[in-house]
Amino acid sequence: MNTIIGVMGPGEEATSDDLSNAYLLGKFIAEQKWVLLTGGRNAGVMHSASKGAKENKGTTIGILPGDDYASLSEYVDIPVVTGLGNARNNTNILSSRVIVACGIGPGTISEIALAIKARKNVILLNDDEMAKNFFKKLSDEKVYIAGNIDEACKLLIELVQNY
Amino acid sequence: MNTIIGVMGPGEEATSDDLSNAYLLGKFIAEQKWVLLTGGRNAGVMHSASKGAKENKGTTIGILPGDDYASLSEYVDIPVVTGLGNARNNTNILSSRVIVACGIGPGTISEIALAIKARKNVILLNDDEMAKNFFKKLSDEKVYIAGNIDEACKLLIELVQNY
Amino acid sequence: MNTIIGVMGPGEEATSDDLSNAYLLGKFIAEQKWVLLTGGRNAGVMHSASKGAKENKGTTIGILPGDDYASLSEYVDIPVVTGLGNARNNTNILSSRVIVACGIGPGTISEIALAIKARKNVILLNDDEMAKNFFKKLSDEKVYIAGNIDEACKLLIELVQNY
Amino acid sequence: MNTIIGVMGPGEEATSDDLSNAYLLGKFIAEQKWVLLTGGRNAGVMHSASKGAKENKGTTIGILPGDDYASLSEYVDIPVVTGLGNARNNTNILSSRVIVACGIGPGTISEIALAIKARKNVILLNDDEMAKNFFKKLSDEKVYIAGNIDEACKLLIELVQNY
Repeated sequence: MNTIIGVMGPGEEATSDDLSNAYLLGKFIAEQKWVLLTGGRNAGVMHSASKGAKENKGTTIGILPGDDYASLSEYVDIPVVTGLGNARNNTNILSSRVIVACGIGPGTISEIALAIKARKNVILLNDDEMAKNFFKKLSDEKVYIAGNIDEACKLLIELVQNY
Repeated sequence: MNTIIGVMGPGEEATSDDLSNAYLLGKFIAEQKWVLLTGGRNAGVMHSASKGAKENKGTTIGILPGDDYASLSEYVDIPVVTGLGNARNNTNILSSRVIVACGIGPGTISEIALAIKARKNVILLNDDEMAKNFFKKLSDEKVYIAGNIDEACKLLIELVQNY
Repeated sequence: MNTIIGVMGPGEEATSDDLSNAYLLGKFIAEQKWVLLTGGRNAGVMHSASKGAKENKGTTIGILPGDDYASLSEYVDIPVVTGLGNARNNTNILSSRVIVACGIGPGTISEIALAIKARKNVILLNDDEMAKNFFKKLSDEKVYIAGNIDEACKLLIELVQNY
Repeated sequence: MNTIIGVMGPGEEATSDDLSNAYLLGKFIAEQKWVLLTGGRNAGVMHSASKGAKENKGTTIGILPGDDYASLSEYVDIPVVTGLGNARNNTNILSSRVIVACGIGPGTISEIALAIKARKNVILLNDDEMAKNFFKKLSDEKVYIAGNIDEACKLLIELVQNY
């Protein structure tokens, strides 16, 4: 079984920092020979992380909300077509060994919360102090704060090794 | 078609305030001749809200995560058995005209976030200032703050009328 | 808890016999004070069964595949909006005490098969000999054959009493 | 994007013919450099097909019904953990370019029916004449009959090329 790392984050509302962080996360995950899992669409963090992984010889899975390939990122190797809409967010979480939330938005928040509920470790990578405080208070045990991409990568290594 | 109001909140981790608020919400929803929708389990906010509605001649729906009636609240008239686990949280939201988040916890947070994503109005009824600020910042337009049960009931009336 | 009876059958491809049988099933379910559950759309067996129940003072639930009320039958009291597409067929089955398959088609076949898998009793009401033989061979124990609407109603009474 | 081929079939109830056919299908899919998708459990057709693919350098995806790795086949590279129970059968279908139904049983029947509903091509590989006639009558256009493993492989080549 491969080690699957989920990278979750905004689609259309991603910031330029989110996009560059997502690319670097995808690259790092590929370099570790892990498999990248995202929400699969050709937008925002999903797309940039998949691009970062593919351009560095990684393998990418995309868990699509729709019932066809209409919104699929070209950097996804293995599209899983669920037709579940946002109910697929729970599949994203259950299928990932560790989750990185890269940026913040309603969908991402639902995923962080579902991760805590499923007792998965989540790394928060963004500069929204309120979001970090909010989730850290919710689960000091399962939520990890990364101040930048290097800290996120170090945390990923630790959390995968101690899984 | 009935007017369905969703009341979401913690199960096992509900506080005594959450429980008494949930009971009063169920009662109020029954008095308005609306239908109450909850997560259906015999625990916490789901159970108390259903009790409040049933003891006041209301109708109650429960969207269960499991694949049988094992965890069903005795105050649910119409159990919908999904077998979806927490993926059923999205069904809770999509099926509710307005949502009241009574208390806070990981499951409830996922539902507030999914509600914002689905463009539904959500009323937050709890005394967690951080949660209220966090969600108000996320969506000033769809998130409403209730300081107490009376404010929550007034907001419900307004939001149902303007739906 | 109410006794929920599922009536499943074709939408757009329903025959006139399917439609009249569905109406009579809805009427009978209402007269027994049971609750009718269908797939909720304004088409075929779902729509006719809901009409039969509503015109006889019954209560009707519709488990919708879409993420809004766009395709909702006007005879559904309680729409459950899943956004799951045809994955919602499993919710239809798990939520029903007994299922009547009224007519036949791909969606209905998936529901009969999921019912057998979930160890639910299913009554087949149609004149397709091949379908009846096929499913009777698959599960002699859980599949019941009704030659006409009266036999279907008698079987419903028996199966609900012995549940 | 990879070419994903779904192989569906009974778990615990698989016959020895189903198991040997499943192994050979997995092997063939690997040799074509396609990706194998199954229901992911360590039982029956899912397990044998995955074994056939892995022992021939293929890549295997498993769409698990449970919410953890408890029932996972050791021959699955990429487990997608859905927690959806049998509602995940629709994901199996929507994610596969072509489906081979290897053997027959309730779960497999639900998948063949969902495939027809989703307008996917399905190859039936089993010696149950009634099942073949039943589904061929249901959809002459989308259902293909394979008399043996060689015919199934030839049909796969044709259907993938004409997709």
